[in-house]
Amino acid sequence: MGKSIAQKIIAAHLVDGEMAPGREVGLRIDQTLTQDATGTMAYLEFEAMGIPRVKTELSVAYIDHNTLQNGFENADDHNFIRSIAKRIGVRYSRPGNGICHQVHLERFAVPGKTLIGSDSHTPTAGGIGCLAIGAGGLDVAVAMGGGAYYIPCPEIIRVNLTGRLRPYVSAKDVILELLRILSVKGGVGKVVEYGGEGVKTLSVPERATITNMGAELGATSSIFPSDEATRTFLAAQGREADWVPLDADPDAEYSRVIEIDLSALEPLAACPHSPDNVKPVRSLGLMKVDQVCIGSCTNSSLADLLTVAAMLRGRTIAPDVELSISPGSKQVLTMLAENGALADLIDAGARILESACGPCIGMGFSPNSKGVSLRTFNRNFEGRSGTQDASVYLVSPETAAASALSGYFTDPTTLPPIEKPALPQRYLLHDNMISMPAPEAEYEQVEILRGPNIQPLPKAMVPEDRMALPVLLKVGDNISTDHIMPAGAKVLPFRSNIPKIANFCFEKCDPTFHDRALAADGGVIVGGSNYGQGSSREHAALVPLYLGIRAVIAVSFARIHKANLVNAGILPLEFADAADYDRLQQGDEIELDGVLAGIREGRMTLKNLTRDECYPLICALSERQCGMIAAGGLLGYTKMKSEG
Amino acid sequence: MGKSIAQKIIAAHLVDGEMAPGREVGLRIDQTLTQDATGTMAYLEFEAMGIPRVKTELSVAYIDHNTLQNGFENADDHNFIRSIAKRIGVRYSRPGNGICHQVHLERFAVPGKTLIGSDSHTPTAGGIGCLAIGAGGLDVAVAMGGGAYYIPCPEIIRVNLTGRLRPYVSAKDVILELLRILSVKGGVGKVVEYGGEGVKTLSVPERATITNMGAELGATSSIFPSDEATRTFLAAQGREADWVPLDADPDAEYSRVIEIDLSALEPLAACPHSPDNVKPVRSLGLMKVDQVCIGSCTNSSLADLLTVAAMLRGRTIAPDVELSISPGSKQVLTMLAENGALADLIDAGARILESACGPCIGMGFSPNSKGVSLRTFNRNFEGRSGTQDASVYLVSPETAAASALSGYFTDPTTLPPIEKPALPQRYLLHDNMISMPAPEAEYEQVEILRGPNIQPLPKAMVPEDRMALPVLLKVGDNISTDHIMPAGAKVLPFRSNIPKIANFCFEKCDPTFHDRALAADGGVIVGGSNYGQGSSREHAALVPLYLGIRAVIAVSFARIHKANLVNAGILPLEFADAADYDRLQQGDEIELDGVLAGIREGRMTLKNLTRDECYPLICALSERQCGMIAAGGLLGYTKMKSEG
Repeated sequence: MGKSIAQKIIAAHLVDGEMAPGREVGLRIDQTLTQDATGTMAYLEFEAMGIPRVKTELSVAYIDHNTLQNGFENADDHNFIRSIAKRIGVRYSRPGNGICHQVHLERFAVPGKTLIGSDSHTPTAGGIGCLAIGAGGLDVAVAMGGGAYYIPCPEIIRVNLTGRLRPYVSAKDVILELLRILSVKGGVGKVVEYGGEGVKTLSVPERATITNMGAELGATSSIFPSDEATRTFLAAQGREADWVPLDADPDAEYSRVIEIDLSALEPLAACPHSPDNVKPVRSLGLMKVDQVCIGSCTNSSLADLLTVAAMLRGRTIAPDVELSISPGSKQVLTMLAENGALADLIDAGARILESACGPCIGMGFSPNSKGVSLRTFNRNFEGRSGTQDASVYLVSPETAAASALSGYFTDPTTLPPIEKPALPQRYLLHDNMISMPAPEAEYEQVEILRGPNIQPLPKAMVPEDRMALPVLLKVGDNISTDHIMPAGAKVLPFRSNIPKIANFCFEKCDPTFHDRALAADGGVIVGGSNYGQGSSREHAALVPLYLGIRAVIAVSFARIHKANLVNAGILPLEFADAADYDRLQQGDEIELDGVLAGIREGRMTLKNLTRDECYPLICALSERQCGMIAAGGLLGYTKMKSEG
Repeated sequence: MGKSIAQKIIAAHLVDGEMAPGREVGLRIDQTLTQDATGTMAYLEFEAMGIPRVKTELSVAYIDHNTLQNGFENADDHNFIRSIAKRIGVRYSRPGNGICHQVHLERFAVPGKTLIGSDSHTPTAGGIGCLAIGAGGLDVAVAMGGGAYYIPCPEIIRVNLTGRLRPYVSAKDVILELLRILSVKGGVGKVVEYGGEGVKTLSVPERATITNMGAELGATSSIFPSDEATRTFLAAQGREADWVPLDADPDAEYSRVIEIDLSALEPLAACPHSPDNVKPVRSLGLMKVDQVCIGSCTNSSLADLLTVAAMLRGRTIAPDVELSISPGSKQVLTMLAENGALADLIDAGARILESACGPCIGMGFSPNSKGVSLRTFNRNFEGRSGTQDASVYLVSPETAAASALSGYFTDPTTLPPIEKPALPQRYLLHDNMISMPAPEAEYEQVEILRGPNIQPLPKAMVPEDRMALPVLLKVGDNISTDHIMPAGAKVLPFRSNIPKIANFCFEKCDPTFHDRALAADGGVIVGGSNYGQGSSREHAALVPLYLGIRAVIAVSFARIHKANLVNAGILPLEFADAADYDRLQQGDEIELDGVLAGIREGRMTLKNLTRDECYPLICALSERQCGMIAAGGLLGYTKMKSEG
């Protein structure tokens, strides 16, 4: 049987397990990346493993999240990451150099390689034919130490693209269409692979927009073939030598095939408050817009911003609209500045923010109260913008620019056509803001800088065979890691300070949770389906661990978060009968008995002491994961394995 | 007797009082400006006066302070200001259009006119020969309503400039030298006028750097002649018609004359934590630098940033230094983008922030803990950067750029010379981000947008004849308005919400003050000399009013803050014998008796009930100010006068 693209890369990197969907496989990881909001933890964890230098082909530490710096915390974290990266052999992309995914695509991602990153949008590099997966910081630490990365072997969904996008319809509309079809759960446990004649019509940055936002499908990854367009992009980045051709075998089999005719697509918008609440822009009527934000790792490439500049040139945004532009990288921003497009954007009234995540993670530019915000970003969870009652719509750069000009939600295909900006033959290549690590002979002299915001990891806990615990919190379906551990400018500075950041845990669901959990000294959380969707942040597991959470019992879990729970030593348990979710209530006292055997057998029973009921639970863990739970998490497990 | 420049402008605008130093004069105000951190209050106060449209020649509302927007508050405030400006006849400079002082200098300031602004650095416009004074928001509101602006008629200090600045020595070094000579108190009650042959060698933007930071001398204003250089600048801004010649009469008399030989100056730095702690850069030794911030209203002109770009071109900043650039205006930023200098800055590793105040007011880019930050700004008060234990040095753009490259405090005159960038014959003129107000016939249809962050003004209080009160807080010398009401990203969003912002009052001096003051329901504050220096923020008076403060008893007051206290209806009292400051302690119960007569007579006696002592106090108020205190502040007084 032929192989798909992802299957070829998995096969070439398989170090443990068997390639059958659902079975756990261990992969050799070629490259890792971290960003600063997750990176401090990842490097503290790497340090705790006691390995002096990274063993990957390439590891990069990016600074792109906490760039506002209201207080010493972020600058201290950056100094910590800069110094430890230099010591352990990791390249350091300085603040201002750009968003990790954009820079990695430009400068480092390689077709056929494996990449894991402590950011859920790591699959952006799938646009270049790299198997790129978002992971917890601890997974990244283990991979940096040369350990394998374990995932359930994914099913493959094939998306056949035909035709060609019409003017003003763009890559963002392709992934919005797929979100409409598949929903935010549709990709769970799957890799989404793109193929068909339509692929050739898409440049690497366009493909990367699509693979980036594949994260919102819940997919393990998304990937495009590596073809002539890939070669052209790599050559323009001075990296033609990195190119290898890569495509699915004609007889590869897929769990599902989806057909998308690019010619038939129209501008789409993901409406509040979910990326899969997708509607045609033209169907939204004459809706007033308060702000427009262009950029983020989804849509901040040179091509995107040149298109926006061409649409804004010589015009002025509507008088009551604010427009922000967050360029994806120093390469993008410098080239925009050099060719005059940046002057066009500024002159039209755009506010140019730093080359960083910015408003996408609530780091500035929050809308007015009850504001309508159009964003080219990838997430529109309620409150993520920093304004709880704002309505955020996810759109293409073309729809964003058209709406900024008119002040109303505007379908760009109603505008006169403009020429599509040509991509450069050669990008500006100047990696002076990427610091190289210390050479092998000198690394021991590098001092690691630890400001007062760098606090130790929470203490690991191992399960007891019998645990009687209260249900400290019950939440609904699709709880995201933003619900569990919010981001935003107020919270992100404490990402390397677990006791401090714990104050914000589940703040939006139940502001009393933190105090109640600390007082209870042990408990469980009950969740609905798709618990832990969204960002890969392992803080959504580490903070509950710090707060004494021993198990999360849910209808179903999002992939990365489930792995993060296991990594932290928290039991992820699923209801065998989803209807039992309704029976178990917050405040109930429960008992788990025979836990140690149950973990190995994959099932155990929850006794609801309050209601005198019993519910069967599934404990779907691989053998390796069982070992991790028994060792109090991945860190303990890795130490245990390396010690003997 | 001949007149100085300021005296000529005062004489031409005198509507009340007599031109003798120290006597109160009322001036007709031609222009006003506000920024957003003080503007919401100023417009609420204007609205409370019941006047429908402004009566000035020109009033402009700038948005430059609260541009980070971590939450709905700032965007709501901007919408409020945008809508009320449109209604009452004020031009609205949109966020991203630039820093009020830079934009006002470029587009609006006129030689010979009077300007008051609710920002202490309003004297920037003195660089163009405008008599520009920082004032409280309420003063600005009254001036917008056509009322006179009252100040003690200033003494005039003459600064004679001779010679010409050497390469890499710049306007910033001139004002730092003057701060070294005069100290932060040396300008109190005075206007600093510049003259002599050296003036001709300075462009308007250079002059504006000097008059801007004249605010740090405590001066009422600073002013340069209007000469051919002024005409050249105005012509390049398309405003030659605004030019009038203006100079001091040869026989004008001055209270003091200071000679500065520009040729003899060297690069200087104001060391922590005061703008007058000035030392030569070369004397500071090999000091490691963590971050460098270029911009702010002091040093963000096109000429400044072109110089920095020329120094950075083709080079890379030191690997462990962060460099931020905050361009002064959209005009500056667009021109930098058009001529390639912006690409040079970005390529060298600079992080380009918005055209706004930014790090100068602690709005982002806070240094690491114990960090050394070199800034081209005008204030280095402890903690203002957002990092309490950081050391901030104020330097010229040249010193800043040289140090960013080396990573150490570097005297730029040790570098090879570069060519001084030429100023443009014609600036880029495109005022599309300045919204015009509604025309007279339509203004009543403009709806004023009030988000939940816009809260009413605190209730006015009138003094009783006998007041027994506790000393709620005793503080030392040179307490700034940053101590009384901090700025920074955490606090500024609540500038239009007095009950909320009151939580931060005196936070750095005594975090218990807010709660104790609310509980005490009435009290006084005791201060040392130069109480209330620094920013013009009237919140430093309005919040104490809200917290029940009836009087501030100090050794001496900074001018704007004293006026703000009176405007708020709080008694500013001075010790007749400064030694009594040491006798009066926090917690003492005091009694003021015969207050109403004392206000009129200019003196009263404080009985210290706790220690059974009496201290004579001075109550130096003009007749008008006595009326204001009796009416519970300027708003009540203005209403009373207008009602009959």
